[in-house]
Amino acid sequence: MRILILGGDGYLGWPTALHLSRSGHHIGVADNFARRGYDLEMGVDSLVPIASLHRRVECWKEVSGNEMDLFIGDLTEEAFVYDMIGRFRPDAVVHFAEQRSAPYSMVDRKHAVYTQVNNVVGTLNLLYAIADIDPSIHLVKLGTMGEYGTPNIDIEEGYIEITHRGRTDVLPFPKQPGSFYHLSKVHDSHNIAFCCRIWGLRATDLNQGVVYGQSTPETTLHPDLATRFDYDAVFGTVLNRFVIQAAAGEPLTVYGKGGQTRGFLDIRDTLACVELAIRTPAAPGEFRVFNQFTESFSVSQLADMVSAAAGGAEIVHLDSPRVELQEHYYRAAHTKLLDLGLLPFLLGDELLADLLAIARAHVGRIEPSALQPQVQWRSTASAISRSAQSPQDAARDSQH
Amino acid sequence: MRILILGGDGYLGWPTALHLSRSGHHIGVADNFARRGYDLEMGVDSLVPIASLHRRVECWKEVSGNEMDLFIGDLTEEAFVYDMIGRFRPDAVVHFAEQRSAPYSMVDRKHAVYTQVNNVVGTLNLLYAIADIDPSIHLVKLGTMGEYGTPNIDIEEGYIEITHRGRTDVLPFPKQPGSFYHLSKVHDSHNIAFCCRIWGLRATDLNQGVVYGQSTPETTLHPDLATRFDYDAVFGTVLNRFVIQAAAGEPLTVYGKGGQTRGFLDIRDTLACVELAIRTPAAPGEFRVFNQFTESFSVSQLADMVSAAAGGAEIVHLDSPRVELQEHYYRAAHTKLLDLGLLPFLLGDELLADLLAIARAHVGRIEPSALQPQVQWRSTASAISRSAQSPQDAARDSQH
Repeated sequence: MRILILGGDGYLGWPTALHLSRSGHHIGVADNFARRGYDLEMGVDSLVPIASLHRRVECWKEVSGNEMDLFIGDLTEEAFVYDMIGRFRPDAVVHFAEQRSAPYSMVDRKHAVYTQVNNVVGTLNLLYAIADIDPSIHLVKLGTMGEYGTPNIDIEEGYIEITHRGRTDVLPFPKQPGSFYHLSKVHDSHNIAFCCRIWGLRATDLNQGVVYGQSTPETTLHPDLATRFDYDAVFGTVLNRFVIQAAAGEPLTVYGKGGQTRGFLDIRDTLACVELAIRTPAAPGEFRVFNQFTESFSVSQLADMVSAAAGGAEIVHLDSPRVELQEHYYRAAHTKLLDLGLLPFLLGDELLADLLAIARAHVGRIEPSALQPQVQWRSTASAISRSAQSPQDAARDSQH
Repeated sequence: MRILILGGDGYLGWPTALHLSRSGHHIGVADNFARRGYDLEMGVDSLVPIASLHRRVECWKEVSGNEMDLFIGDLTEEAFVYDMIGRFRPDAVVHFAEQRSAPYSMVDRKHAVYTQVNNVVGTLNLLYAIADIDPSIHLVKLGTMGEYGTPNIDIEEGYIEITHRGRTDVLPFPKQPGSFYHLSKVHDSHNIAFCCRIWGLRATDLNQGVVYGQSTPETTLHPDLATRFDYDAVFGTVLNRFVIQAAAGEPLTVYGKGGQTRGFLDIRDTLACVELAIRTPAAPGEFRVFNQFTESFSVSQLADMVSAAAGGAEIVHLDSPRVELQEHYYRAAHTKLLDLGLLPFLLGDELLADLLAIARAHVGRIEPSALQPQVQWRSTASAISRSAQSPQDAARDSQH
């Protein structure tokens, strides 16, 4: 198949491109390098050095003999999207190309607006291009389990049967997202569902949990194939961050009580899930939703596991910068990908040892200040937003 | 109270400003004149001539002695929003300032993206400005009953109690919007609910039905106080359009079977509802949702009523340009505004006679071609989108 990976230079996009190329598919990778730009803005960097996308593609050809098509551009630009879809003519598009950090979206007004416009407009342009060029293209879109929030009932996969005053319908599962980023994903989900309904598009929304891990069978074949490993408080996900704190001899920082429970998965399962979704596409007109995670953990449980694996790292509790329930019910369905054949990698000593080894190998690259949360949900602007005086800054200065 | 009306030059914004001024409030009106621009783009005009906003404000001062503050600008511009909120210091903001036509949002990619960016970013800027300048400002936001779609269960007011696998929670009512415009309102609702939760803002979302009527006690005091009366297939709502078709001796055009059932209300009830919401504001942190309509009708019922009032106008059925159920269950709660004291104007012969008289007085201004639907939901672009060759046009020309 011809598969286009949008956001193919990112943490998950690049390993997905490698994995699907190795499976024999013809791969195109597209990126605008926004993710590398966020690092420059924040003054942080991937713990593991990463090669340029051009070098990555060249290295993969040396290692595997497989070529990839490269598209440099921005999904918010109509002409780029139409040209790319029209020239590459994919059978499936895997869409990772969104701003994906909740704290980044909460930095200030500008970052909130950027996140929502970037994600929503990019996806709208893609939907129109698919509808205009080839509606049979299967859109595999990365969503997030965070779209659901933490309701006091079981979370189902996208839809829920509701019986109310004697009548029954199957309706979209109610969404309670917890950041402007998570909101952008909810907006996308509604937009995609609508386009499937009116234009007969086929789409799979992968509501992914929090991903951990850095090594895949392909990224370990050559250092220039490595994917990024984020540990900073803005882009690092929680397990990766704990591992790096342990490796650096810093205490593991749990936000609040640590009872926040979420779905998690190994990076290798991300690749497997995307491949399973592609192999069995959604039907024309179908907006299919899979919950893509393999296990649920509370933040405290993860901290305990990392601490034990690291020989007893200290755990400290910080005030949570987020507005979220610190203890809550959490049970979410995730059987559809298992039904398609997913055999998960569960979180265990081997994975933690691998992560700790990676972190220790690069311990000199750790910038401890990047581990401290700087973005506060209850505030409309954080210290890192102050690049130049904006009307928002002026209003805040005069009011507070 | 000090009340700021955003979109104060529009069909509902202007009569709302007049009504609340007459009630003794200090009114500011803001507009960017986008609505008048859409008329220029489409080559249509309000059936009833309308004065400029400057003249309207001047005329109201002559008639009532009351002044209004005037703000000309665009909500998508941060500096304008912060400056306006900071200078006027409203107690309540009534937010009509969105692109509000479903067909307009479905013209083509450009109009879809414009509608979502304009509506979502404008509202985000407003939320940030309120949070930064004065979180106690009560935001009264115009939503739409169209956010809910037509589920096979009773529609509740914003939230629904769901019991699922033995557990119960009150969750946002699931949304199934039917156009990029309706989707933009769903995006807004999620964004506003989140801001109430994290910043303690207070907001009332008025999920309004389809409004009919043109006369209010204030707009009839002087011709320069008249509000617009849209009849074209893009901006005209269905009852107003039927009345104008009847007055012009054209057949009433029902889309499909006409079993599409929606909630409706008289323009005078819009004003009353907004005033009731302002008088009893939402609590800090509360995202309150009212369903703002007074009666449900099917499109066929409305056509029959107008036909009878006009002495037997012909009714024809066109293929529906929309993707919607033409026969469906529809029952929606709308008790919260009644509980606050709303005494509705119900649809009857008197209102229809008034509308027909207005239409007949201006029959020479009717452009019959504007009554024909030109925007097709199943198509990604309509004839009226072709101002210049775009990448979307090129792709469609080469594929279709």
